[in-house]
Amino acid sequence: MAFHETIQQLPSLQKSSSLFNPSTVIAICVFFTLLCVCIIIGHLVEENRWANESITALLLGLCAGVVVLLISKSSSSKILVFNEDLFFLYLLPPIIFNAGFQVKKKQFFKNFTTILMFGVFGTVISFCLISLCAFYLIKKIGVTNLDTKDYLAIGAILSATDSVCTLQVLSQDETPFLYSVVFGEGVVNDATSIVLFNSVQSLDFNNVDGLTALKLVGTFLYLFITSTLLGVVAGLLSAFIIKTLYFGRHSTDREVAIMIIMAYLSYMFAELINLSGILTIFFCGIVMSHYTWHNVTESSRRTTKHGFATMSFIAETFIFLYVGMDALDIDKWKSSNASAGTSVAVSSTLFGLVLLGRAAFVFPLANIKNLVGNRDGTKIKFRQQFIMWWAGLMRGAITVALSYNQFSGTNKSSEAALMITSTIIVVVLSTLVFGSITKPLIKAVMPSQAKSLNSDVTDNQSLEDLRILFLENGDSIDDQDNNNGNQPPRRASSFRLLISNPSTTVHYLWRKFDDRFMRPVFGGRGFVPYVPGSPTGEADADADEAS
Amino acid sequence: MAFHETIQQLPSLQKSSSLFNPSTVIAICVFFTLLCVCIIIGHLVEENRWANESITALLLGLCAGVVVLLISKSSSSKILVFNEDLFFLYLLPPIIFNAGFQVKKKQFFKNFTTILMFGVFGTVISFCLISLCAFYLIKKIGVTNLDTKDYLAIGAILSATDSVCTLQVLSQDETPFLYSVVFGEGVVNDATSIVLFNSVQSLDFNNVDGLTALKLVGTFLYLFITSTLLGVVAGLLSAFIIKTLYFGRHSTDREVAIMIIMAYLSYMFAELINLSGILTIFFCGIVMSHYTWHNVTESSRRTTKHGFATMSFIAETFIFLYVGMDALDIDKWKSSNASAGTSVAVSSTLFGLVLLGRAAFVFPLANIKNLVGNRDGTKIKFRQQFIMWWAGLMRGAITVALSYNQFSGTNKSSEAALMITSTIIVVVLSTLVFGSITKPLIKAVMPSQAKSLNSDVTDNQSLEDLRILFLENGDSIDDQDNNNGNQPPRRASSFRLLISNPSTTVHYLWRKFDDRFMRPVFGGRGFVPYVPGSPTGEADADADEAS
Repeated sequence: MAFHETIQQLPSLQKSSSLFNPSTVIAICVFFTLLCVCIIIGHLVEENRWANESITALLLGLCAGVVVLLISKSSSSKILVFNEDLFFLYLLPPIIFNAGFQVKKKQFFKNFTTILMFGVFGTVISFCLISLCAFYLIKKIGVTNLDTKDYLAIGAILSATDSVCTLQVLSQDETPFLYSVVFGEGVVNDATSIVLFNSVQSLDFNNVDGLTALKLVGTFLYLFITSTLLGVVAGLLSAFIIKTLYFGRHSTDREVAIMIIMAYLSYMFAELINLSGILTIFFCGIVMSHYTWHNVTESSRRTTKHGFATMSFIAETFIFLYVGMDALDIDKWKSSNASAGTSVAVSSTLFGLVLLGRAAFVFPLANIKNLVGNRDGTKIKFRQQFIMWWAGLMRGAITVALSYNQFSGTNKSSEAALMITSTIIVVVLSTLVFGSITKPLIKAVMPSQAKSLNSDVTDNQSLEDLRILFLENGDSIDDQDNNNGNQPPRRASSFRLLISNPSTTVHYLWRKFDDRFMRPVFGGRGFVPYVPGSPTGEADADADEAS
Repeated sequence: MAFHETIQQLPSLQKSSSLFNPSTVIAICVFFTLLCVCIIIGHLVEENRWANESITALLLGLCAGVVVLLISKSSSSKILVFNEDLFFLYLLPPIIFNAGFQVKKKQFFKNFTTILMFGVFGTVISFCLISLCAFYLIKKIGVTNLDTKDYLAIGAILSATDSVCTLQVLSQDETPFLYSVVFGEGVVNDATSIVLFNSVQSLDFNNVDGLTALKLVGTFLYLFITSTLLGVVAGLLSAFIIKTLYFGRHSTDREVAIMIIMAYLSYMFAELINLSGILTIFFCGIVMSHYTWHNVTESSRRTTKHGFATMSFIAETFIFLYVGMDALDIDKWKSSNASAGTSVAVSSTLFGLVLLGRAAFVFPLANIKNLVGNRDGTKIKFRQQFIMWWAGLMRGAITVALSYNQFSGTNKSSEAALMITSTIIVVVLSTLVFGSITKPLIKAVMPSQAKSLNSDVTDNQSLEDLRILFLENGDSIDDQDNNNGNQPPRRASSFRLLISNPSTTVHYLWRKFDDRFMRPVFGGRGFVPYVPGSPTGEADADADEAS
């Protein structure tokens, strides 16, 4: 390796430090220098509507790959080979945790059914379509050496949207509905794709019968529910421990450390018992921001809010840099052994299938949702459907990681290597194309009404109305809530409200339950234990900012 | 491996997740669970004068090692094998960086000559003594297979004090002088030992002549000065970038990310060009806290202050847990192949040498310092000397890491393995014994005068006097400072002051230089660029807290 040789030739003190493997040190130096450059460029192009940090990182990674390739005279471009473990163990968890921690919970839960519908059924539709089409089309191109399992894996691999890049092109403040649906779908979709992928890998094709599909559904439901529960339990446990033991008394570091470690532990524990770590840590993040975050000292609140965001930011940038540099790994391209024509044909087929696979569920499901759920008057307009389709077309690191998992290995054919290179082309192209055009597209398609559509303002209003309605007889009724049955007029009105405005009512009932049973045990806003040196006014301001 | 087998036997969904290597997941789960338990226990024993987090972690690690040993039926106790790379690449940098970032700069620089004297000459004295005695004593025990290089390495290995544990037993507020000297010495000492160790490894024993010692001295000075400079440059660069590009305008995450990445990069870059990364990142931390920290937004200031402390805290706890668990690695003990008697004899010899080696320089050097530097009236009393000796007796992860580096490997003898196990015994014993007794000892030896001895209060007073003296003609003289030569009376007085009170005057002159040349370029307190949303009052309060 060229860098390695360079360091060997350093004349001065080369023998005096022997503690490290020099190639590791070089790789880390190069990577962190590139990260620095990425962050600075990202800052400078912040106001540019076409570029963003992901694209900068990806392009910079590609450039670095070219430079390394030239220096090493085409012999090798590996500085760090893409490593699934690094990705799934260390880079993905902070990103997903932070997403849960910072998500606007009300929007997320309001659109929960939509998110689930898109994330689960949508992904399955996309998976079936891509697998089926790939099976017929790729054989026609002349790639014949793949088996059924490989095609099913391709379907799962290409159904995994890139929620990281989505976060960067959609704005939580400008288009809250789109953001919460597309991003929420992204998280559920990641989990669904990974479950599908794992199911495909463990499927015994000699024994396929009618029960297989049912088993898959059962497995999925089991995974979804238990993973979510595990995340909620981990979050509640952290809240309970911090509230009971009152860490802030001695050291704020311990509070932050416990939050980080318990969140990460929930992810690893979920993976240990073969659940979906992504779902677990996402819900752990949500619960932590709702309870735990309010139980810590004011310093810890600020530290966690910005510290988690920074960790996530570094991991995201790192991933794109990594994928960019990895794309030019010459060994992979050599072992794929395919003509440029075949390579282009396969890549463009896969690229087309990604577009088609997503279109096949976004438009139908959105219209079904419009038909069924139109009583609250919030239809998903065609323009919004278009953005939903477009913003979910990016493929990212999960796709690359799953592709490596399926197709790399010593005893794999050259056609498996071709699948890896084609996947990388799809990932790089989709990130560059869709990533750069989405922001301007949203501005063009939805010029000004973006803010008024499905925004929080109307919700707050109706929630306020509801609260007034419920409490019209004064606060003293709170004690009698349990025997509401004796007061037919009020029950009738709340029942009518539940029918006419279901999500708001559910939210209201949840708030009551939360205030009465959950917060006294687990803390949370308004139930914070007294911590000296934590000015309450400031804490409340921060709480408003984060929720 | 038992855990591995356990997971294979899990009946339900064992095949559905194949993304990870299960033993990695298990190891991470066990480690992070233990970390959680450590933090909780550490919180509960906070007010206990005998225990602290390090001891808790070490004991918990030992217990976990026993449990794993029992479960795996003595076949193997490896969950994570001690890995030098993990330690030097990922765990040590955040600890040392945070130490520099949070150190009380005035105390540190005031005692700089003392720190250097102890850290450099002291370590060299200890190294020579331990090597020499080990050479004669260990041969007498019956261990004959080690060569000269090994004995010199033992000297370097056992001269590396554990600055991490020292931080926990000494209090920066109660005994500021002792803290700054013992801790500062610890950092310099780590660097010295590593330099000595590397020099020993690269030494060509066929060509030893009078120049060798001179070369060693030259190498050391070169390393010390260039490493420090590199750290200072990295810190100033980060301050300059953040001040010029004004990151806070768009995102506070980028500021924090740039600080973390540049600090880490300085460490890795120092290692890349074979300098001492520890010294570099320590001074980078000091410069960052003096300039960069004041250039970022108020949120970032809080986040970095507590975030870095948390990172360091987690790394420290992790290290002790790690050393504890590693101590019971059965393979190591088997391959050492020594009788219990030999093992005990070697360990206790080494333990005694550690005590002797430190006594051999603390008391003489402290008395030399008292003789030479007694004009400012701050003699190091015998009680303080005793604490300085005692608090630096703990050996920690650096010792373990260097020992592995020297003595592990496939082609090493059983006596090399014996050296590893003996080193581990010394580390565990010294941490448990000295770590638990130091806090009560300080209370016993220095009951109440701890606070008044060499505290900051007197310094501030004399600095204030000096300032009044310098500025007695009013602020308008500032412009004429460069041609001070025309004003003999004032020059005479400042010269007299420089003689009578050198460190305070140097500090005062530095402050003037800093205010006139450095801060306008690199920012810092009082030269912060205007950042919207950063309340100045609060920022100043924070600044006072941190400096």
